[in-house]
Amino acid sequence: MHVADPAHEAKYQRLVRDVVIPYQWDALNDRVAEAEPSHAITNFRIAAGLEEGEFYGMVFQDSDVAKWLEAVAWSLCQKPDAELEKTADEVIELIAAAQCEDGYLNTYFTVKAPEARWTNLAECHELYCAGHMIEAGVAWFQGTGKRNLLDVVCRLADHIDSVFGPGETQLHGYPGHPEIELALMRLYDVTEEPRYLNLVKYFIEERGAQPHFYDIEYEKRGKTSYWNTYGPAWMVKDKAYSQAHQPLAEQQTAIGHAVRFVYLMAGMAHLARLSGDEGKRQDCLRLWNNMAQRQLYITGGIGSQSSGEAFSSDYDLPNDTVYAESCASIGLMMFARRMLEMEADSHYADVMERALYNTVLGGMALDGKHFFYVNPLEVHPKTLAFNHIYDHVKPVRQRWFGCACCPPNIARVLTSLGHYIYTVRPDALLINLYVGNDVAIQIDENTLRLRISGNYPWQDQVTIEITSPVPVTHTLALRLPDWCAEPAVSLNGERVTGEVVRGYLYLNRCWHEGDTLTLTLPMPVRRVYGNPQVRQQAGKVALQRGPLVYCLEEADNGANLHNLSLPENSAFRVFEGKGIFAHKMLIQAEGSGYHAKDTDALWQYDRSPVQREPQTLTFIPWFSWANRGEGEMRIWVDEG
Amino acid sequence: MHVADPAHEAKYQRLVRDVVIPYQWDALNDRVAEAEPSHAITNFRIAAGLEEGEFYGMVFQDSDVAKWLEAVAWSLCQKPDAELEKTADEVIELIAAAQCEDGYLNTYFTVKAPEARWTNLAECHELYCAGHMIEAGVAWFQGTGKRNLLDVVCRLADHIDSVFGPGETQLHGYPGHPEIELALMRLYDVTEEPRYLNLVKYFIEERGAQPHFYDIEYEKRGKTSYWNTYGPAWMVKDKAYSQAHQPLAEQQTAIGHAVRFVYLMAGMAHLARLSGDEGKRQDCLRLWNNMAQRQLYITGGIGSQSSGEAFSSDYDLPNDTVYAESCASIGLMMFARRMLEMEADSHYADVMERALYNTVLGGMALDGKHFFYVNPLEVHPKTLAFNHIYDHVKPVRQRWFGCACCPPNIARVLTSLGHYIYTVRPDALLINLYVGNDVAIQIDENTLRLRISGNYPWQDQVTIEITSPVPVTHTLALRLPDWCAEPAVSLNGERVTGEVVRGYLYLNRCWHEGDTLTLTLPMPVRRVYGNPQVRQQAGKVALQRGPLVYCLEEADNGANLHNLSLPENSAFRVFEGKGIFAHKMLIQAEGSGYHAKDTDALWQYDRSPVQREPQTLTFIPWFSWANRGEGEMRIWVDEG
Repeated sequence: MHVADPAHEAKYQRLVRDVVIPYQWDALNDRVAEAEPSHAITNFRIAAGLEEGEFYGMVFQDSDVAKWLEAVAWSLCQKPDAELEKTADEVIELIAAAQCEDGYLNTYFTVKAPEARWTNLAECHELYCAGHMIEAGVAWFQGTGKRNLLDVVCRLADHIDSVFGPGETQLHGYPGHPEIELALMRLYDVTEEPRYLNLVKYFIEERGAQPHFYDIEYEKRGKTSYWNTYGPAWMVKDKAYSQAHQPLAEQQTAIGHAVRFVYLMAGMAHLARLSGDEGKRQDCLRLWNNMAQRQLYITGGIGSQSSGEAFSSDYDLPNDTVYAESCASIGLMMFARRMLEMEADSHYADVMERALYNTVLGGMALDGKHFFYVNPLEVHPKTLAFNHIYDHVKPVRQRWFGCACCPPNIARVLTSLGHYIYTVRPDALLINLYVGNDVAIQIDENTLRLRISGNYPWQDQVTIEITSPVPVTHTLALRLPDWCAEPAVSLNGERVTGEVVRGYLYLNRCWHEGDTLTLTLPMPVRRVYGNPQVRQQAGKVALQRGPLVYCLEEADNGANLHNLSLPENSAFRVFEGKGIFAHKMLIQAEGSGYHAKDTDALWQYDRSPVQREPQTLTFIPWFSWANRGEGEMRIWVDEG
Repeated sequence: MHVADPAHEAKYQRLVRDVVIPYQWDALNDRVAEAEPSHAITNFRIAAGLEEGEFYGMVFQDSDVAKWLEAVAWSLCQKPDAELEKTADEVIELIAAAQCEDGYLNTYFTVKAPEARWTNLAECHELYCAGHMIEAGVAWFQGTGKRNLLDVVCRLADHIDSVFGPGETQLHGYPGHPEIELALMRLYDVTEEPRYLNLVKYFIEERGAQPHFYDIEYEKRGKTSYWNTYGPAWMVKDKAYSQAHQPLAEQQTAIGHAVRFVYLMAGMAHLARLSGDEGKRQDCLRLWNNMAQRQLYITGGIGSQSSGEAFSSDYDLPNDTVYAESCASIGLMMFARRMLEMEADSHYADVMERALYNTVLGGMALDGKHFFYVNPLEVHPKTLAFNHIYDHVKPVRQRWFGCACCPPNIARVLTSLGHYIYTVRPDALLINLYVGNDVAIQIDENTLRLRISGNYPWQDQVTIEITSPVPVTHTLALRLPDWCAEPAVSLNGERVTGEVVRGYLYLNRCWHEGDTLTLTLPMPVRRVYGNPQVRQQAGKVALQRGPLVYCLEEADNGANLHNLSLPENSAFRVFEGKGIFAHKMLIQAEGSGYHAKDTDALWQYDRSPVQREPQTLTFIPWFSWANRGEGEMRIWVDEG
């Protein structure tokens, strides 16, 4: 499979094409009022010698352009747009012009510190930016068939391959922020150049070796430090932050900066599969399991603390001080996708779906122009400005960020959903997600075409229709979601009962045009009970319907959401919302609450038992919260 | 009244005299193994020219010596000790030797930066250290009758009075860390020198004036900054941190660094009373009310966040990330004591008692040699090392601190309890606390002597016996604690029913030797219901018996305390504990819990309702937690 080509496209993919991509192009060119400046395109113009000026922005500002290009590549593949393609080609031309003679490409170093190239891998994101540019080059090639950016990034990759490696004159280093690993694996997929795969192997196996490369380069450059947020050279010293404190084979838990972790693991899983390295496969399984079983939020968020945008420890999942960066859940989808390619186990797809429909969708406003970087499960806006444990939390989505990694990352993942919906394995085509789409997939010498339709995740019926004019014999494996107690599948109206292995229903036959699979995935409202290991959920319950997690918002339920309770036996009413909730299903239940008075004094600390009053509770899909201005929100609700 | 002189002294006062004062003397002289170094005495030796060397420690290191001297003063007043007095006199001699010709006294500036005196009031604690030294001088005079330290601090105060004021050649400044205000008021009490009172008035009224003094001195000294914890010169910029963002008459809420706030308010309340300034009285009432009604923990802790050791906002009272510095609760007692001197309202005494019996006692281990700086209401030790929102929290008390403000502060407050037990007002002697003690109080020309005994706060009977050989006519006002629903008072066996005004029972008569008042203060276990405004307490309940707040500890109840519940109707069993809990009352109740498994996986997020099992819950007085090693603790428990 090269790409999915949705005809019955989801609203979101249309939104990305019509609104998000043009909006982000404006942002990259500093044409959005009230947004943090980007300067990313200007940086390339300066590096290319087309304009005078200073570099501005994060040391990894280039990556915003690369991610935007990748989103454009997938979008063009879904629906051609000559004007957009022309704009992107001009950007590619600009990038090529900013590339150095030797293949090096990075506007920060080219403009600001050409002599300091490759002297600070721990802190300076050079390989990270290269990785994103390589990903864009691969996507542009896959999405449009054009080699212009692919040629640029191959020269870049060749340059990197010359700089890094075991040779005496080479640097024995690896990135502070992983990303190059997964990017080079993707480049290997399209080029089949073994040097790229070997370089990934080198980067991964050097990681955590002693004496430590970050210390060596730190000494060598005279102990200068780029970041001082938590004290001098903290990024050099806190090696677990970059998953570089020990070799990956010895690491037992998901640790450090969450985005770095999942990017690294995505590359490693890809490498483990293609190199057939059982040790690396075991490393992936062990670290996946720790993350998914002990450090994952119900929203598919990861990274429970702001400090270091990092994991905390097993079962420490605070709802209000959580970080759960949008990019981390995108990286989690990327990691899950690689695990699925390695192991046909629906757990990976379940996690991927959880991340997609909750944190990733929630990272963007319904208007496509505002974004969350941090995705809390509980917000009390009145407190945010006063208690510094909430300094990282915003009660509403922002137009752009000084560190703008998340918005273009959301755009590229939503435009490339085909790669997540389907997993092409030699033995079967896994269908993981039920997003509406048309697809054409190469199976040996035939092309299997199919169309998924329905109104997932709102309605329980999904239709998969074969649209290949020529019959194709192959195995389709349909994911039976973890949230669905009683899935049913029929083929051309007849109930089918194939073999279910690790969460997939396998159906092998010769597929003819018009063959129609119907999945019925009943989605009653489910109570998810807080895990007893997680003190922040103890005695609480969350509502989920299909893959969607729900929440209470102040706009519907008034302030002081913490005073609301959902009785054990209350019935749920599911109904379609209005306004911004049109075509979305909302939930109501009879609950109870009590009313705090503004004049309440604490000091007696001598209160009577609280008197509860009946109150109807209204739950909305969590991904759509904060689209009606500022207000309280919470997912986990007291039961009783 | 000058001092209380307990004969039937509480165990704690004995502990302070026998253990705490000698231990802290060793600490100040760097003779405690495994403790953070102090160097405080050495700093004075260097400043006095008796030793060569460098200043070491906090810019306010001197204040540790001053607080220790104050504790010694009160201790000697309770029980003479020639050797201890000799040691203290030698320290006073050393301090006098370190004082400059002009009266200036501060070892940091004298040793390290004599040219920089009074150039950085916002950040450098010069007036704060002076305040503590003045307090020590006053206490030493009041406790021993000796003027040696009083003369030193009068010279210091006179010097400060010459430097600060409205004159053209004077500095129009005031301290970043208030303390001098309350100290000068105490000095005024013993010297009746009006310049001292006027200087307090000046410091308080200049506060928050524009153009801002902190900015002026910052510019003047070339924008240098002493503290950079939260960025350059943050202490200069964040003026609310020092309650200097606006004039006190305009401030509406308790804000900023909690210790600064209560120290400032203690001085201001003292000034308001003596100057009869109604505006300042209203300021005190308004700010007290905001603090006590909306920002006070059930433990008498204040300051709900670590960042800036500061208040947050109304009703934001997190249990686990709280700061609640021991010194802040001591300062709260000081503020409450001044409010009582101004207004005979038992609310102030209720808060004072809450702080004393919970956070202040809890700040010190039962062995008198380990201390808490931060006093959380909930601790989960396994998480502390991983989630940086807990960086300030220690699961067990420490031997000493780099910033050692709290330990000697606890010592001086416990030795000076007489000033909190009694409030001498012209119209009545308020008896606020029922700590066992003997006291002699001057009433006009007579001396009223009385003895309080009983086993407060463990048993419900308190005896107050008149021991004056000569009859004295006066009004005694007995506080009826807020926690007691049905207090009863008898005089010589006969039930009395005097007038109760604002929480005090007023009894006027001619008191004869042997007259005996018996207070019966029934103290059943009380359920304190979480205030609905406080989301961190919603649906939860805490136990209190008498003034003591109770908690669950892992040592008695196992791990995962968040899984325990206390049913609405469970009965309480109160019993005396054993070992370290001998003479302390513990509480048991039938509750329920469920058992988390170490292998619990989160990722399914698809659990059944949790199955509860009966479990006996054991509650201990919170002040005595963490005396059995590291383990979980929590005060607020789910009800149900």
